[in-house]
Amino acid sequence: MRRIVFVPVAVAVLASVAAYMGPVSGQADGEATPIYGIKIPAGYRDWRLISVAHEEGNLNDLRAQLGNDVAIKAYRERKLPFPDGAIIAALHWHYVSSEENNKVFGRAQSFIAGSPKNIQFMVKDSKKYAATAGWGFADFTDGKPADEAAHKTCYPCHEPAKARDFVFTRYAP
Amino acid sequence: MRRIVFVPVAVAVLASVAAYMGPVSGQADGEATPIYGIKIPAGYRDWRLISVAHEEGNLNDLRAQLGNDVAIKAYRERKLPFPDGAIIAALHWHYVSSEENNKVFGRAQSFIAGSPKNIQFMVKDSKKYAATAGWGFADFTDGKPADEAAHKTCYPCHEPAKARDFVFTRYAP
Repeated sequence: MRRIVFVPVAVAVLASVAAYMGPVSGQADGEATPIYGIKIPAGYRDWRLISVAHEEGNLNDLRAQLGNDVAIKAYRERKLPFPDGAIIAALHWHYVSSEENNKVFGRAQSFIAGSPKNIQFMVKDSKKYAATAGWGFADFTDGKPADEAAHKTCYPCHEPAKARDFVFTRYAP
Repeated sequence: MRRIVFVPVAVAVLASVAAYMGPVSGQADGEATPIYGIKIPAGYRDWRLISVAHEEGNLNDLRAQLGNDVAIKAYRERKLPFPDGAIIAALHWHYVSSEENNKVFGRAQSFIAGSPKNIQFMVKDSKKYAATAGWGFADFTDGKPADEAAHKTCYPCHEPAKARDFVFTRYAP
């Protein structure tokens, strides 16, 4: 009974090592953000999950935060501040009621990720971004960076989380 | 400006290949579920993200679905049915209002993942699980499998998603 579960896992591991090297070519894509000069890091969609969230109000989204390996390692080892090289990605999708799921549950209770809204990144580089506590911030919609005014709001907004190195999201086990 | 972003990504990739081989030892952990004989797949928390969701009502949770490499490949290539070896993990956390985030937004709008509720798995093995359309189902709370009665509800509940090989969750780009 056990082996049948083990085998696909083992196959998946071998495949993962090969697959993992594919999309992450070390090339960032597209246009760089104002102020911080950050491009969308290649392969970020393959990064591991930090946590998830839902914002009501004007944002009205579902969110997932992913971390590159430096960020995930720091989270799991509870190391603060985050070391240089850490990158946190925040993926935001439209908050969509799922009629299909609601039918199964027999009531309107199910909300799923719709189309993407925007993607944000926090990039740790203590020298380059010394003026903003070592963090560079980036916001993209449809692959295009937000403007300078938008990027000026990032750091002040993250200041309340100073005690956790300006990162709001906690790791969800 | 570009290189400073590239370097941590490249470092992360190298680290990831090494790190990725670590936790996934091919060993599943703990007690097996009734009916399907599934253990918690080692390293599932490192799998890549499929999507996120929120259930209201009695469930009242935030959810993330992760896929092993076989599952992610099938999702990205839009291949149905899922091939043998595909495993989908559903992580459910308590739905928690974040006072810290609400202060930043200036209103009560922010909900984050609290402590874990349960973890579920769908394991594709068309021979072993032929009686349930090739899927084995598993539900764990605090590492312990739910009982037989609970596991009997899995397949009938997933039947409405037959057109998508009994999987409700769609891939969130």
